[in-house]
Amino acid sequence: MGISLGPNQYGKAEVRLVTVRREGAVHHLRDLTVSSALRGDLTETHLTGDNSAVLATDTQKNTVYAFAKRQDVGEIEDFALRLGRHFVRTQEKITSARITIAEHGWDRIPVDGVPHDHAFSRSGDERRTTTVTVQADRAWVVSGVDGLVVLKSAGSEFHGFPRDEYTTLAETDDRILATAVTARWRYQGDSGIDWAKSHREIKATMLETFATKHSLSLQQTLYAMGEAVLRARPEVAEVRLSLPNKHHFLVDLSPFGLENHNEVFYAADRPYGLIEGSAVRDEAEEPGPAWTDAVL
Amino acid sequence: MGISLGPNQYGKAEVRLVTVRREGAVHHLRDLTVSSALRGDLTETHLTGDNSAVLATDTQKNTVYAFAKRQDVGEIEDFALRLGRHFVRTQEKITSARITIAEHGWDRIPVDGVPHDHAFSRSGDERRTTTVTVQADRAWVVSGVDGLVVLKSAGSEFHGFPRDEYTTLAETDDRILATAVTARWRYQGDSGIDWAKSHREIKATMLETFATKHSLSLQQTLYAMGEAVLRARPEVAEVRLSLPNKHHFLVDLSPFGLENHNEVFYAADRPYGLIEGSAVRDEAEEPGPAWTDAVL
Amino acid sequence: MGISLGPNQYGKAEVRLVTVRREGAVHHLRDLTVSSALRGDLTETHLTGDNSAVLATDTQKNTVYAFAKRQDVGEIEDFALRLGRHFVRTQEKITSARITIAEHGWDRIPVDGVPHDHAFSRSGDERRTTTVTVQADRAWVVSGVDGLVVLKSAGSEFHGFPRDEYTTLAETDDRILATAVTARWRYQGDSGIDWAKSHREIKATMLETFATKHSLSLQQTLYAMGEAVLRARPEVAEVRLSLPNKHHFLVDLSPFGLENHNEVFYAADRPYGLIEGSAVRDEAEEPGPAWTDAVL
Amino acid sequence: MGISLGPNQYGKAEVRLVTVRREGAVHHLRDLTVSSALRGDLTETHLTGDNSAVLATDTQKNTVYAFAKRQDVGEIEDFALRLGRHFVRTQEKITSARITIAEHGWDRIPVDGVPHDHAFSRSGDERRTTTVTVQADRAWVVSGVDGLVVLKSAGSEFHGFPRDEYTTLAETDDRILATAVTARWRYQGDSGIDWAKSHREIKATMLETFATKHSLSLQQTLYAMGEAVLRARPEVAEVRLSLPNKHHFLVDLSPFGLENHNEVFYAADRPYGLIEGSAVRDEAEEPGPAWTDAVL
Repeated sequence: MGISLGPNQYGKAEVRLVTVRREGAVHHLRDLTVSSALRGDLTETHLTGDNSAVLATDTQKNTVYAFAKRQDVGEIEDFALRLGRHFVRTQEKITSARITIAEHGWDRIPVDGVPHDHAFSRSGDERRTTTVTVQADRAWVVSGVDGLVVLKSAGSEFHGFPRDEYTTLAETDDRILATAVTARWRYQGDSGIDWAKSHREIKATMLETFATKHSLSLQQTLYAMGEAVLRARPEVAEVRLSLPNKHHFLVDLSPFGLENHNEVFYAADRPYGLIEGSAVRDEAEEPGPAWTDAVL
Repeated sequence: MGISLGPNQYGKAEVRLVTVRREGAVHHLRDLTVSSALRGDLTETHLTGDNSAVLATDTQKNTVYAFAKRQDVGEIEDFALRLGRHFVRTQEKITSARITIAEHGWDRIPVDGVPHDHAFSRSGDERRTTTVTVQADRAWVVSGVDGLVVLKSAGSEFHGFPRDEYTTLAETDDRILATAVTARWRYQGDSGIDWAKSHREIKATMLETFATKHSLSLQQTLYAMGEAVLRARPEVAEVRLSLPNKHHFLVDLSPFGLENHNEVFYAADRPYGLIEGSAVRDEAEEPGPAWTDAVL
Repeated sequence: MGISLGPNQYGKAEVRLVTVRREGAVHHLRDLTVSSALRGDLTETHLTGDNSAVLATDTQKNTVYAFAKRQDVGEIEDFALRLGRHFVRTQEKITSARITIAEHGWDRIPVDGVPHDHAFSRSGDERRTTTVTVQADRAWVVSGVDGLVVLKSAGSEFHGFPRDEYTTLAETDDRILATAVTARWRYQGDSGIDWAKSHREIKATMLETFATKHSLSLQQTLYAMGEAVLRARPEVAEVRLSLPNKHHFLVDLSPFGLENHNEVFYAADRPYGLIEGSAVRDEAEEPGPAWTDAVL
Repeated sequence: MGISLGPNQYGKAEVRLVTVRREGAVHHLRDLTVSSALRGDLTETHLTGDNSAVLATDTQKNTVYAFAKRQDVGEIEDFALRLGRHFVRTQEKITSARITIAEHGWDRIPVDGVPHDHAFSRSGDERRTTTVTVQADRAWVVSGVDGLVVLKSAGSEFHGFPRDEYTTLAETDDRILATAVTARWRYQGDSGIDWAKSHREIKATMLETFATKHSLSLQQTLYAMGEAVLRARPEVAEVRLSLPNKHHFLVDLSPFGLENHNEVFYAADRPYGLIEGSAVRDEAEEPGPAWTDAVL
């Protein structure tokens, strides 16, 4: 009976990196969580425990820290590209490196209305992300945002859905629509892009679309957000979104002789709807390994 | 052998309440998590299961939702006072009610630079809190803030601490100081206070003090924050702070031939220092039950 | 500029279902978290908000609860198959359904050494899982286990790895090896399998292999676990494992004049190694959509 | 205006300690999370940043690790007492030390039915805990258990509660009762107690009482659990319990033409009831500082 090694990768996950860059008295703070995953000819370690191709995950962690010193981190996409290329170029058996970075934002604390030089407060739970996949001769960049929680209290309906024997949901032309956006967008090419500006404008486009698009389903909102990004940003080939429908249920106040005109809601934890979808530019280049997780 | 009922309380925890108030086309959104705990003569239910004094926790939940409809929620302190007084006044056996509320912030999504009427994004993980304890004839209000994560990359030293046989920590005159502020302040009296303004200015005072106070220990920073609040806000009797010292360790880059001039740090999860302390106005009224949790 | 809808799916996530089946005085408890995701021709809702093909996620939730009553839940694989087939067969536009179930275990509380009829304690954090993908004419079953935390304090080495300029890790022939196993195994076929027995024996095989296989790398342990399952269980086509390397670092006690002979360890949270891999039976049937998540 | 330092303490939280003790080929594994908090005359560091009385939290961490080597950890109560006494005796300005330890359990992996010498699996989420408060001449020991999740599917009623205008809850004589037990019991004295046996038997008593006591309210169950412990264990002065009422709501299947005879339930996350109470031995010694947290 033959048994073989299937898909595999390994690396160091969630290296917490904080850097301080000094410009005179002004400090610039960066706060990243970096994960690396290497793929290639790793059969030996799996079959015999021969680790001669296994760059230790501890070394991968050291590399992250050393690279953060060697050169200013810069945009997370560039930092990820440098790290990924280093691993692929220096490790003979490694044919692909996947670097994932989440950036946590900090704001300067205002003192008498002036942003402070070296004191910061965390700007929230939202994270800017990138996942860069590097192979010998090219790279794929998928950037995104996590934990962008949004809600609209008007401009959302849901009706016209099929009613089978298990359907009890009432149709509505006025509901709260709330979600925590996880967005990923795949860039065309891996260079010549102003990553920071692109991220900022994509996020603004998604937020504006969420706010202004009259919604007949969360799917429609999702696609509108993706489509708006593709129309506005030629550097983007594809947008994928995962949108939990964070249900807000109208509380029945009639037992207390009260009417509830969409004023008082119960925000539920579970279950939640989960709407996932994507908008793709027709002439976009093939995604290659950009989206492929190796194993689970 | 005699055994008696000791300290006890019961209630409904974490009622998730979202309200929408309409002012023409403009929606006002509130997002609260409300917990209630009742105390009083509850011996019978514990000893015999006679529930005649046990206002159901389900009823407590309903009361939160109904009250949110009957009158605009307003400031969380006022909402908590109304709820607490209701329970104490209507339930014969209940002598004390403790209402705890956390408010989650939302910002209006800007569209073409203009805040949107009814679309919002979550403003972060920080929460404004209040814990109100109501008895027959008066109430105690302890408000605060949770999850206010701050960091300063200069202006922090730590030295002069005792060195025993287990001490290996180097003295430093330049370290990152980072913490997640949990603050609670006890008000003098329960009325005539502009809760929103007080909260806003206390938070600003704490942030400014954190930023500007040169720190020789996190304890010194903590006390300075509390003292500054007491000096600026006469309505406050006492400030208590719990400050985890979120360690940022300088990464040793010397094995790679690199010097690390306080540029590259590893942000650790555990263990962390935990510094707790308080500043009290000398002539402050007694706290009474303001801080007392009944049981665990 | 053409833009199209790309990969998409939608459903209800994390429906918490608890059932009690009575056999005389003896109660049988089941505790499941069920998620459904439907795929098919869902273009209209994305483009125009026409929901005529969108079976509401609320209906999906109702279906889970109703099916739990119509027929005893049975093994989670069978319950998932029934649910998935129902959605595919009754919804014209739905061509594929993915049902994911996690089962939480409960043990009977012993009273005077006898398992109690109707009182239970939660048996831990480990969960038995299944992900079933149903299409018109067949189904794929991937079952597994989550949160199986294991540790061995001997029989683990790590050396022979490459040393580049960023490598500082010492080689070791005696380390703690600890991980939290997430395992998924793909079955050959979707019927005629004793799911419960298969799960039980696969888990036992993995645990025994983890315990007894001398480890030169976590990769070797991973592959050995997968291979052992394939050798023992002909119904399994493929095993995939995701193993975080939960580092236990030897504490340096030498500053205190103490030697640490692998006795005292610091268990770190982050970063952690992440080792992912798989073992595949050579003659296994193709996986088809078994592993494919639609979007993110 | 006078302002003073109020209640305060500081220490190291959540030191993760794993130890391996070897008995021939058999390894004994311990897995603890240790927190220390010191109190005393700490005014100077708060007011001036003079740290001469501030034993660094890093030193406290080192002490935990060194003590784990100097002597076998033994029962967590004894380990906590040794640590607490060390800090109070060696630090002139420290008048009280509070040591809190949570122990995570591990089971030996069975191989061919035989428990393995050095391979373990985590035994669940439940933790054995202790909080020891040491002052110059004595100590108080409060031990407990966290995360003990239990459920009974019969033998639980809830009725007879007051019905005010906000009460909608139906009375029931048959409901699921589920909770996650957090228990703390205060010992009489700090020596001469078989901590392990006491813990084991207290836990068994609580579980048996939960299982067998017919429940008319969760409060009644709570008190019965505490009372049973006091009756069975003379070394215990007081038992305090915090019991979230983890609601299991009967799903209304009538829209689908199905009756639900307490068979199919929805397990809700939030809100939950929170029942806290205690049973005290009448002649118990005073608790002193045993329960007092210094600050928040």
